[in-house]
Formats: sequence, C-alpha cells, structure tokens
Amino acid sequence: MTSLVGTQRAVRWYPPAYDIRVEDVPIPQILEPDDAIVKIKLGGLCGSDLHIYRGHEDVDAVLTCGHELIGEVVALGSNFHPDAAGRPELYSTLRVGDKVVSPFTVSCGECHFCRVGFTCRCVHSCLFGIPTLPGGQAQYARIPKAGGTLFSLRHLSETHNVDVSRLSDSSLILLADILPTGVFAALQALQHPKLSPMLIGCSYPNSTLIPKGHATEETNSIALLAQDRVLTIAVIGLGPVGVCAAVSLLDMLSRLEAENGIHFHIIGVDPVESRRVKMEAVYSTITRGQGPQQLTVTSIDGAKSLTNKLTNGAGCNAVLEVVGQSNALTLSYELVRPFGLISSVGVHQEPPMPFTGRDLYDKNVSFDFGRCPVRAMFPIALDILLKRQDVFGGVGEPASLIDRIVGFDRAVESYELFDKSRCGKILFDPWI
Amino acid sequence: MTSLVGTQRAVRWYPPAYDIRVEDVPIPQILEPDDAIVKIKLGGLCGSDLHIYRGHEDVDAVLTCGHELIGEVVALGSNFHPDAAGRPELYSTLRVGDKVVSPFTVSCGECHFCRVGFTCRCVHSCLFGIPTLPGGQAQYARIPKAGGTLFSLRHLSETHNVDVSRLSDSSLILLADILPTGVFAALQALQHPKLSPMLIGCSYPNSTLIPKGHATEETNSIALLAQDRVLTIAVIGLGPVGVCAAVSLLDMLSRLEAENGIHFHIIGVDPVESRRVKMEAVYSTITRGQGPQQLTVTSIDGAKSLTNKLTNGAGCNAVLEVVGQSNALTLSYELVRPFGLISSVGVHQEPPMPFTGRDLYDKNVSFDFGRCPVRAMFPIALDILLKRQDVFGGVGEPASLIDRIVGFDRAVESYELFDKSRCGKILFDPWI
Repeated sequence: MTSLVGTQRAVRWYPPAYDIRVEDVPIPQILEPDDAIVKIKLGGLCGSDLHIYRGHEDVDAVLTCGHELIGEVVALGSNFHPDAAGRPELYSTLRVGDKVVSPFTVSCGECHFCRVGFTCRCVHSCLFGIPTLPGGQAQYARIPKAGGTLFSLRHLSETHNVDVSRLSDSSLILLADILPTGVFAALQALQHPKLSPMLIGCSYPNSTLIPKGHATEETNSIALLAQDRVLTIAVIGLGPVGVCAAVSLLDMLSRLEAENGIHFHIIGVDPVESRRVKMEAVYSTITRGQGPQQLTVTSIDGAKSLTNKLTNGAGCNAVLEVVGQSNALTLSYELVRPFGLISSVGVHQEPPMPFTGRDLYDKNVSFDFGRCPVRAMFPIALDILLKRQDVFGGVGEPASLIDRIVGFDRAVESYELFDKSRCGKILFDPWI
Repeated sequence: MTSLVGTQRAVRWYPPAYDIRVEDVPIPQILEPDDAIVKIKLGGLCGSDLHIYRGHEDVDAVLTCGHELIGEVVALGSNFHPDAAGRPELYSTLRVGDKVVSPFTVSCGECHFCRVGFTCRCVHSCLFGIPTLPGGQAQYARIPKAGGTLFSLRHLSETHNVDVSRLSDSSLILLADILPTGVFAALQALQHPKLSPMLIGCSYPNSTLIPKGHATEETNSIALLAQDRVLTIAVIGLGPVGVCAAVSLLDMLSRLEAENGIHFHIIGVDPVESRRVKMEAVYSTITRGQGPQQLTVTSIDGAKSLTNKLTNGAGCNAVLEVVGQSNALTLSYELVRPFGLISSVGVHQEPPMPFTGRDLYDKNVSFDFGRCPVRAMFPIALDILLKRQDVFGGVGEPASLIDRIVGFDRAVESYELFDKSRCGKILFDPWI
C-alpha cells in the first residue's frame, strides 16, 4: 500500500457562514480496508455547496468543501488485493493508477439499496464535504467503500467500446453530480405513469398490471388524438443542473419524437438573465439553429402566461424543480396541470412544504423528491456526455457549463461571485 | 323525452355542520342536452361525506347529500337521440331503461383529460352532493354529461362476455367510488418506477428511455437477490376504501407472485378495532385460511415495530394513505423506506403538508395525491368485483363491506353512527 505523508492544500469552510479559508491540512490516509485515496485533478463548486456556505445546513464544525471530484487512485485498502475474499465484483476492478470520477455520495455497491439502484440511499451513504467526510476541494481525498463509489474510466474503456479520451476533464467532472442529477430529474418525469398516455398513445392506466384478456379491458378505451400527445415540460432553475436537466430532456424527448411520434416543448424558467442567455446558447449549439423552436426561456413573471399560451390553459405535464427553495415548489404547483408530475431534485431545507392537503388532492399532483442516485444514472449520463461534447466539452465559451478553472488562491473570491450569481460553474485545479 | 313531475324524498345537509334532514324537494329535470335523469336504486354513505357532515369543506349552502349511486335511466337529453350529431360514441350507447352505475364525479368523455384517462379531472368535472349538483341520497338524480359519466351494465353485457346478473346491487354501488379508489391507490403504488426493480428483478432505472445497445448500459448492473424482491406495503386506514385497497393489492400482488416470482406482505393499520377485525375477516374469506399469512393488521402504535420487523428496519416499499388527515401522512412518511412511494387517495383538507423540504429530499420520497379517475379504473375494479363476490356480494356478514341497507327514515341516525365509527358502510334504499 502506498503511503502518503505530509500536508496538502484544501478549501475549508468555517461556521457559522460565508467564511472560506485555504489551509494546509494532513493528507488523508487509508482508514478502512474498502478505502481508496484519490489524487484530485479537478474539484467542482456546486450550487448546493452554497447551502453550507450560507449557513443553511445546521453545520457547526469546520469542514473541507466540495462534493465533485475527478482524479487518480493513488492508494487502495487491503480489500482491493486480488486475494481479498468476500467483496463484490466492483471491488476487483479498481486499481492504483485508474482515472476515476467520484459520485457526490458514498455507495457500497452491495447493500439492498445499491443492488436495486437506489445508490444515493446506500446504507453507508455519506455526502462528501461534511465535517466527517472531507470533500473534493483539496489535493487528495479519502473515498470510503471505493469499489462501490468510484467509477473507473480505465475499466470502462477496457470492457466497453467507449473512447473516453474524447471527454475533456472539465466535462468528466459533470458526471460527479450535475449531469446525472439533470438526467434523474428528466427521467423521473418521463418514466412516471402519468405521462405514459402521451408517450404511448394509450389512455391511463395502460398498465401491465391489468389482467390480460379480461372481459372488460376495453370498456374505457377512448382514442387519444394527436393533440393529446404533446408534452410541455418546465424546468425551474437554469443554473448548471437546470441546463443539464434541459439537455437531458431534449435528448430523451427528441428520441421519443422520432420513435413514438410525440411533440414537445420545454419551458426554461429563471429570474437571472445571464442564466437564461446561457440556456439559449446551449440550445442553439445543440440545434444549430435548425428545426422548430422546442425550448423557450422565460423569467418567473412570464412563466405562467407562456405555459398557458403553449398548453391552452391546461398547464405543464411535468415540472422539473432544480432550485431547492420553497417558492420554486409553489411555482411548480402553479405551472403543473391536473394529473401532472413535479420532479424535484433541488436540495430542500427546513421550510415546510408550501401546500395544503387540499391543494394536492384537488389537482392530483404527483411528486418525486430527492437526491440523485449517481451510480444508477451513470450509463445515461455518460451517453449524453459523449454525444454532447459541443456543450459540455469546453470552458468559458458562451455555451459552456464550466465558466472557468481556477486555483485555490481564488477560492474565496469564487465562492463570493458564485453566491451572487455573478459567474457560472467554477472548477478548482488544486495544483495551480 | 319522459317528463317527471312533482317532488321526491332526499337527504339534505344544512350548514354549518351535523345537521341532516330528510325533505321533499322537486324531482330533477333535464337541463342540458347531455343530461340524464336516473331513478336511484341505492345511494351510498361514504367516509368523505363526513367531511361535509362535520363542516370541514367550507360549504355554506344546503345540499342534497351523497356521491354514490346506482339506478335506472328514466330520461335522456336530446343529444342521446340516434340522429344527434357531434357527440362521442359513448353518447350513442346509453338508453332509457339502462341499469347504470354513476362515478362520484361527472366526466364528459371527450375532453383531453377524459381521452387520456384522467377522468376525475375532466374540464366539466363536478362532484355529486354539493350545492350546485344534488347527490345520490335521493329518489332521482340529474346526471350531467351522462354519456361520459354513466356506466351502462346493459351495454357492458351486450358488448362483453360479462354476466352482470352475478353482481348484487349492494356490490355494484362499490363501483361508484370505493372499489375504484382502492384499485387506484394500489395501482399508483405498483405502477411507480420506484417499485419496478422489485417487480421485474432489474435495477433502477430499468427504463425504456435508456438508449438500447449504447456502450455503457451495463456499467451499473448489479444483480438483485431474491431477498430484494420482497414488497412490503402498508395500508393506512381500514375503513371501506382501505379494505378495497387491500383487496386490490392482494389481487395484483398475488398475480405478480405467480408470474414474476416476487414475495409480499401487506400491513393494515387502523386505530379502530372493529375495522381491523373486518379486515381480518375479509382476508380469511379470500384465503380460506390457506397459504402463508401475507396480511397483518395492527393498531397505529404497533405499525412501526411491525414494519421494522418485517423489513429488517428498511421500511415499507409503499404506503397507501386512505384516511385524508395530516397525521396519516406523517405516519406514512415514518413507515415508508428511502426511495419509497406514498399513494394518497384520502380527501385532504386545509391543514398544510406536515413535512419540511429536507424531510422529503433526505428520504427520496415520492407522492401521488388525489381523486380516483373512476371511469379509468372501471375495467380493473369490475374484474375484481366479479372475482370477489365472496367479500363484496353480501350485506351484514362478518366479511361484508356493506353493513346495512336502510331507508331515509334512518338517515339522521346513520350519519351519527358512521361519524362515530360505530357502524360500517351504510346504503340507503330511497324507496323503503
């Protein structure tokens, strides 16, 4: 086992709020047999880091920031030894020297929740960037349950026909959180049974649970019209995750348009003009200005009238809420149609749900809340990342999700700018 | 067009609360070309009638009670004439003399929401038993949009091989609301994508939206074990709708057990002992005491420990909430596992949702709220009704959902008993 000694540079947050310092801290060590140590190549600054930054997370101890990282495995615990017994297959495929992406939470790869794909609710789940698990804005990080957690690009390229060299490092880090989270938001909506009539052209409940061939199965069949098979989906919040959600929706809906004959329109909502401009730049990069306009951005004030205009007053079939604030849930409810779905991936805090029971009963609203199971979303996210290097590959271009890559000397300034929505997504290179 | 004149007897509610009177009121007339007049054979008293009875529904005008009715069509508006043009097919199949079941809300059968199967959110939707639409606890009722709303048993038996004469009248009225609502509660749970890994043995997201054959589709595959394919589902509230939900679950889960190889357990929760005893009687009637025990009833106090015992502390995969009170939602949250589903068909009122945003984010909870689209659930509900006449066919037996059939002279007393959970479901025969 490689042993790393000495200190490293790390971005640290001090309670109660808005206090970022760059400090020398000990290089992490292997503590458990399932651990890996990763030498970090890039560490991301994410919108949900701002919850801690602003003091909204009830944290009262100093911590090493960040939950997005890519890097190289430089040390492995004893359970990765070829002779180690009793570990799942995932633990035999990770090697020192592997280039890896780390999801923003730990997942063991062997509990019930990992087996069924709910990897963010692994029984060993832990978020990077909290007092008990130092995060990715450092030069090195300890990764618990590394066989289940880390995604090895070397293993991927050896076992699948994927040319990972096409992927820029700054795009790879999108796989740690924001692209899978955008995929998850979109997938929760499009997979929901309440959207299935529009997708397959057969009225609800169109379920495999309905006994086949029973005498009454056709008593309710009413033919859908072409106008019923139009999906209008809003994305509330056009920060980096919101853009990833919109790009994921575009990818999935374009396939459904070609294969299933549906039509669709995406409504992007954000109060910040620079974010709306970014979303439009991303959309024109993807469409190259061709085809009908299938995505429109709007301010909050314009969201309701645009929705009414596009849906004849019915409302959106689904709303993706990627903000994590109570007022975004209220707007989601206002925009969604009866029997519609709100897919909420925003990191919500203490405020109570802004709805009465009657609000929800009277509109037959469905909700899917919560954290993205990154490992389960990896295959789709990687597929979109490979296809969309035009959007995700660059840094600092009008359509780039990554605004800039900076050293830790600019960490304090970067948090301040990001907190005030004065810049896009920032990555830290811990070695410059 | 048949014309009915004179007065009829009807059960009327007076604001603000607890004031039931049996009165003579005018027989309803055809008001619109899509109307039908139904001579009522039986009118039901439903748990959600108690919301109005107790004054919880913000109603300040007198009304004719009830939203469950079966009867015979005695008059039809001009749009049912064979020469009437421009009406959907459903309007050509209804005739004077037809025995009909009326869902508890109006649905036109031709708007977008009706076409896609969300019939309870029809643009003409209206609940029976409100000041502007007199209900089913009367001798006659006017049915708006009757072609879309009413379900003709004569038409069913002529077009499908269903022997409707096997169905007792007291069981037919269950199709007006409570059996479809139970089916809906169960179906929302079993159709949800978060239950699919257990049902099909393939890890989440197992989606048809994942591009076929793309290079990375297997990068996340972890095999499910037999122990992962066990569904534990709680039903909170064992009144008549809760029993219907449990019977629906039993029907669907037994098929999934036989066809897909899953295992399951249902937990029935109710604070009222007589309801738990009824649920147990229904369960033994269905199983005839054979096979393993797959349904256990418990009080509220015992629900958490039973859930923990049956699921090794993980929690229920899904919870069906059929109560409509805030504390039932709180218990649902406590019983459901991370990445689980709460299917809520209870009629909720003014209290706000008893959850913070963080509660829902931290457990990846999904919710489906709202009213049953009865027309869309008819085929499955009728299938279960035909199969389960042993439970649904009788009146006053230990396993019967219908406790008694009474005349309007016992209406005041019946509301009082039902309000205090001192009797089971009551039907009114308006002609005795």
